[in-house]
Amino acid sequence: MTNQVSEKQLLLQIQPLIENHEAEAVRLLLEAYRPEDIADIFWDIELDEAKFIIKVVGQKEAVEIIRSLDEELQERFFKGYTSKEIADDVVSYLDSDDSVDILNLLPTRKAEEVLSYLDDQDYAKNLAAMLHYDDDVAGGLMAKELVQVKHNWTVSQCIEEIRLQAEEVDSVHAVYVVDDKNILNGVVSLKDIVLSKAHTSVIEITNTEFIAVNAYATGEEVARLMNKYDLITIPVIDSMNRLIGRITIDDVVDFIKEEADKDFQLQAGLSDSVVSEDKVLILSKARLPWLMVGLIGGLGSSMLVSNFETDISHLPQMAFFMPVVAAMGGNAGVQSSAIIVQGLANNTLKSKNIMPKLAKEFTVSLINGLACSALLLMFNLIIGHNYDLSIVVSIALITVIIFASLLGTITPLILEKFKIDPALATGPFVTTINDIIGLTVYFSLGRILLGA
Amino acid sequence: MTNQVSEKQLLLQIQPLIENHEAEAVRLLLEAYRPEDIADIFWDIELDEAKFIIKVVGQKEAVEIIRSLDEELQERFFKGYTSKEIADDVVSYLDSDDSVDILNLLPTRKAEEVLSYLDDQDYAKNLAAMLHYDDDVAGGLMAKELVQVKHNWTVSQCIEEIRLQAEEVDSVHAVYVVDDKNILNGVVSLKDIVLSKAHTSVIEITNTEFIAVNAYATGEEVARLMNKYDLITIPVIDSMNRLIGRITIDDVVDFIKEEADKDFQLQAGLSDSVVSEDKVLILSKARLPWLMVGLIGGLGSSMLVSNFETDISHLPQMAFFMPVVAAMGGNAGVQSSAIIVQGLANNTLKSKNIMPKLAKEFTVSLINGLACSALLLMFNLIIGHNYDLSIVVSIALITVIIFASLLGTITPLILEKFKIDPALATGPFVTTINDIIGLTVYFSLGRILLGA
Repeated sequence: MTNQVSEKQLLLQIQPLIENHEAEAVRLLLEAYRPEDIADIFWDIELDEAKFIIKVVGQKEAVEIIRSLDEELQERFFKGYTSKEIADDVVSYLDSDDSVDILNLLPTRKAEEVLSYLDDQDYAKNLAAMLHYDDDVAGGLMAKELVQVKHNWTVSQCIEEIRLQAEEVDSVHAVYVVDDKNILNGVVSLKDIVLSKAHTSVIEITNTEFIAVNAYATGEEVARLMNKYDLITIPVIDSMNRLIGRITIDDVVDFIKEEADKDFQLQAGLSDSVVSEDKVLILSKARLPWLMVGLIGGLGSSMLVSNFETDISHLPQMAFFMPVVAAMGGNAGVQSSAIIVQGLANNTLKSKNIMPKLAKEFTVSLINGLACSALLLMFNLIIGHNYDLSIVVSIALITVIIFASLLGTITPLILEKFKIDPALATGPFVTTINDIIGLTVYFSLGRILLGA
Repeated sequence: MTNQVSEKQLLLQIQPLIENHEAEAVRLLLEAYRPEDIADIFWDIELDEAKFIIKVVGQKEAVEIIRSLDEELQERFFKGYTSKEIADDVVSYLDSDDSVDILNLLPTRKAEEVLSYLDDQDYAKNLAAMLHYDDDVAGGLMAKELVQVKHNWTVSQCIEEIRLQAEEVDSVHAVYVVDDKNILNGVVSLKDIVLSKAHTSVIEITNTEFIAVNAYATGEEVARLMNKYDLITIPVIDSMNRLIGRITIDDVVDFIKEEADKDFQLQAGLSDSVVSEDKVLILSKARLPWLMVGLIGGLGSSMLVSNFETDISHLPQMAFFMPVVAAMGGNAGVQSSAIIVQGLANNTLKSKNIMPKLAKEFTVSLINGLACSALLLMFNLIIGHNYDLSIVVSIALITVIIFASLLGTITPLILEKFKIDPALATGPFVTTINDIIGLTVYFSLGRILLGA
């Protein structure tokens, strides 16, 4: 049994060896490690060192290491290789789904070159066909490698086919049954093949109540189906119901994680997927756009507040409560939009009717607004603030919480309708709008009720 | 092939039938649906209707429906059943991992009663042992149902064992090889069993370089290993390396989604996992605590600002820029903490050394702060604001962005050190602190530079 290894220790051992070009020592050292673990140290080494490792570990290991690299590292890594090297040493050894992932990282021109260098031109044609799909639909997530059998075969013929495909298809979880026109008829589990007699007709053990996805189904839909029905693999079909590939759950797990990360990032106001190891300028670029949105919103607020200059100079205490009114609007809005965004993402939102949701949100925000306002009023009276001002602040607070909650509920639903990622609604954009609305309500109430 | 069905349509058809107690018609109607799809309508029906459906669909289907229900629905549902009914009609038909999930939902007393009612007391003992594990460690995620074979068996003995276990173990992906002391020696894939001769010794096709987890490994660790090494199942062992269960990827997918949701919720200031279908009071309760935190922070801000009353009455324009300074601190802080939080959650943070991260964050925030401040200064000068005030606002803005970014970087790392969920750092808590710090910097600078 092998478990995780210390990355640091490996780095310390391997870097001096690479520096001295001790190929054999590096090879021996790495023999004890899994490709996935070796891939981990690629974050911390130079391109030259990486190329050295790939050269010495042997073909099969090298391909596995490259496959396990993070996308960003792959992209960086392949800049050091020619199209012919990528074709001969990497793509020709990979499963189609992994190859397509890599080709998608390359500039179009280079990807085409790689395809032209492939010896197996059938494989190249397959890959070219798969490149037509976006990488977030079923066709972009699927692999072409699968075991398919004819509906009139026996179990022993199936086993023979598995044997023939064994080298190409790493992990077999199911065998797909097709007719003469390649139309998918059903799925047979490996367990049923193991438990059946050799001469059994395959159709007897075929499950025809299977679930398949169209090549253009979204990644979200694939994830939802596999999750709901606890599937390990799902077949991919074209519009004629012909079998064209299969997706395994591990690719979908990656997809689910990426989607969750994207929502989290949008909510935090990051415009790109960044990690703290990225270069300063990349980090800065991912963050500056949303800061600018916030800034422009802030300037809007400042121009708004400037309309109330005389009110403030008349009663400077009004300024004291600007932060609390603005912040509470932001907080309440983010809460209500997060509930909707998550409901949309997880498909737990049973209906997209806006009116009943708004009615409910009104009640919830009224309760919370009343609770917060009462507390604020108590505090202000104890502290000994101006009575009228305290009343204004509390009324403004309720109004702002209700308003921001309704806006937070409605915005993601509207964005979804226009096919814009609803997670945008929990980010700085809506917080900023809520700031402006909150302050407008506050100062307007102040002017009316305090006659300032 | 069956794909998704219209939930609404099913609801419309079934509710009148249930009302008229037409058991046979309900049974016939539901025959065309998968248990997972039937489970979906349980969100929209009453407990009585649900019980009626469960009664008429037949034992096997009923158990599958209950298994597919969302946790919240299960909890609600079982309130209508006695301990004996739960034992006889549900738990005795479920796999151990699903049974444990259900027992965990029940009050301890009721869970114990259910166990005492089980006919199979070995199974009850197994379940009791599994209940000792938290539901977020490997022992709580695993199932006891697996196919295990002895290291000195042949392939045909293995197939016999699979046949014996076939009814209990739904999906077989791997066979676990143990020695006489039940110590896990390795894993055999079903594919290798299919491709091997009957008299082959199992040890010849055993993979001894497998990955296993200890029963007390965290769910995060299990998810990380399965994701990294693309595993469909992972064996669970005790401290003596004895095989005690296995975890399948679908349970881990659920876990990954729950974890991502939790981070998203914390970031949005929701203290509980809520969906928009929840009752008003539940929604209100999940949101009020963070609103209160925001409120208390806001009161802090207001008390802080009140110290600068004379400055404001002297130069009311200072109030104009309070929102932008406060908001930008919040935005910058959330961005930097989100990067760290995500790095911690995804294990992509290569080192937890704080100093180099702070140095980098300083550079990033300096660049972004300068860009924002320059823009703000330009705007203020064009608009014709007081020159000195414009300079103060811009200096305050840089300072606040840098300060908030550093705080956003450091807070999640510190929380992680104290074993508190670092996602807390992207929520209202830190935004509020940044508000206060931002305003302090702003007004202090104003006092010093404007001598207000």
